[in-house]
Amino acid sequence: MFIIGELINSTRKRVREAVLARNADYIREVAIKQQQAGAQMLDVNGGVPGQETECLMWLVGVVKEAVDLPLCLDSNEPEVLRAALPLVGGSVMINSVNDEEGRVETMLPLLREYKAKVIALCMGPAGPPKGLEDRLAAGSRVVDRLTGGGIALDDIYIDPCVLPLSTGQQHGVAVADAIGELMTRYPGIHSSVGLSNVSFGLPVRKLLNESFLLLLMSRGLDAAILDPCDRQLMAGITAAETLLGRDKHCLRYLRAFREGRLEPPPPASLASPAPVAG
Amino acid sequence: MFIIGELINSTRKRVREAVLARNADYIREVAIKQQQAGAQMLDVNGGVPGQETECLMWLVGVVKEAVDLPLCLDSNEPEVLRAALPLVGGSVMINSVNDEEGRVETMLPLLREYKAKVIALCMGPAGPPKGLEDRLAAGSRVVDRLTGGGIALDDIYIDPCVLPLSTGQQHGVAVADAIGELMTRYPGIHSSVGLSNVSFGLPVRKLLNESFLLLLMSRGLDAAILDPCDRQLMAGITAAETLLGRDKHCLRYLRAFREGRLEPPPPASLASPAPVAG
Repeated sequence: MFIIGELINSTRKRVREAVLARNADYIREVAIKQQQAGAQMLDVNGGVPGQETECLMWLVGVVKEAVDLPLCLDSNEPEVLRAALPLVGGSVMINSVNDEEGRVETMLPLLREYKAKVIALCMGPAGPPKGLEDRLAAGSRVVDRLTGGGIALDDIYIDPCVLPLSTGQQHGVAVADAIGELMTRYPGIHSSVGLSNVSFGLPVRKLLNESFLLLLMSRGLDAAILDPCDRQLMAGITAAETLLGRDKHCLRYLRAFREGRLEPPPPASLASPAPVAG
Repeated sequence: MFIIGELINSTRKRVREAVLARNADYIREVAIKQQQAGAQMLDVNGGVPGQETECLMWLVGVVKEAVDLPLCLDSNEPEVLRAALPLVGGSVMINSVNDEEGRVETMLPLLREYKAKVIALCMGPAGPPKGLEDRLAAGSRVVDRLTGGGIALDDIYIDPCVLPLSTGQQHGVAVADAIGELMTRYPGIHSSVGLSNVSFGLPVRKLLNESFLLLLMSRGLDAAILDPCDRQLMAGITAAETLLGRDKHCLRYLRAFREGRLEPPPPASLASPAPVAG
């Protein structure tokens, strides 16, 4: 499972404040925490309205200095990406291209020049998909255009577009079925989701996020943009990888156990005295 | 998801002791706890060596008196079942038949007479299966013999035979693939697993059990013999059912949330003072 840390995203209030204040310490801390928690790549989103280019460029500089991880540039504006890509200097992913008119064609030169991996979103000009069929149609069109432009399947991460379950009870199953179908249709392709969208508007979001990830891993999902600092989620991934036969002699599972990563930490009330008011 | 409570099993030490001592209070308590936790059927296993018939008959009497749930008689001895079935008086399941010579034929009259549901184990005369292919072969033979004998697919629960992951890293994936394949091959059939076998010999068993169940639900599993008193497992099932589109407007998820069933209970140290030594 390829884990892309989601936390450096300027649509999150604290990150946006840090970006606007050019608070590099906070961003560095979030980058390092995600790496320590097991992220293998960091998503970086500089989407502050009107300032996306300079915000993304600043973020890339800070994050590159803080950790030695590849980055996933989270923007669908070619101009923003064109400005930020030269700063990355190494393996990079672009998040994302979709099936809107001309979108793939505009991105192809950048993808080729930087040998970038790319997230291919199952979304067309009509906006977010409604079910399985439009996900398959849009996804196939994007993948076919990318491969037609010389991009290898191994560099493409199909993303079926996770929508909040609170807005439609079939959204989850449509994503699961789309992953199963597209991973079969394009042998060698990868798949990824923006996981936490699924639980938006519902309580106990971590439970839904973790459960959804396991349902999708069972259909072939091999990457996700998620919160690597969610211990329970990461423990579930370790267990699922072992159960899916990808952990020889269960060695990684046993190491995670020895390192205390499979069980919740002791409650704060036992670990240290509660703070005293006043 | 059809939940069959696993706890009244005489291979568990405390249950065996209660059965041998004819301690009806303890058995009643375990039955009621499982019903309150959400079990829709209770597995009852009287497998005390040399005394299985009388132990199972006694257990059936005690459990029937304690709860109003259908029972799953856990024995592969036709004589034991023949003695216990008349005591059940209502909907019943037999756990299990397999592909050993003559096994299905011996069970068919009982299944028909009691209109019993039946767990069809993917296991042949050579013992536990080794991979996907022998699971499919044995499972198909059992199902074909059952349907050939007049049993409806809707009454058959195919069980791919869960083996401990600690004894073979491909056991999990073989079970998942077998469920996907058999549920597709026999539309209308059900599937079930004895869940907790998967984690035998490994640490943090509940994490593996819960993760495995979600991986299997994503392939079509619709029943399981499990510990319904494992709150985290039951919360995961609730989340998965919602994510798989079986919970209109997320109403069952939201009710479970309001009833406090989705989150762990507060640690005992917060709920009540710790016992004082001495």
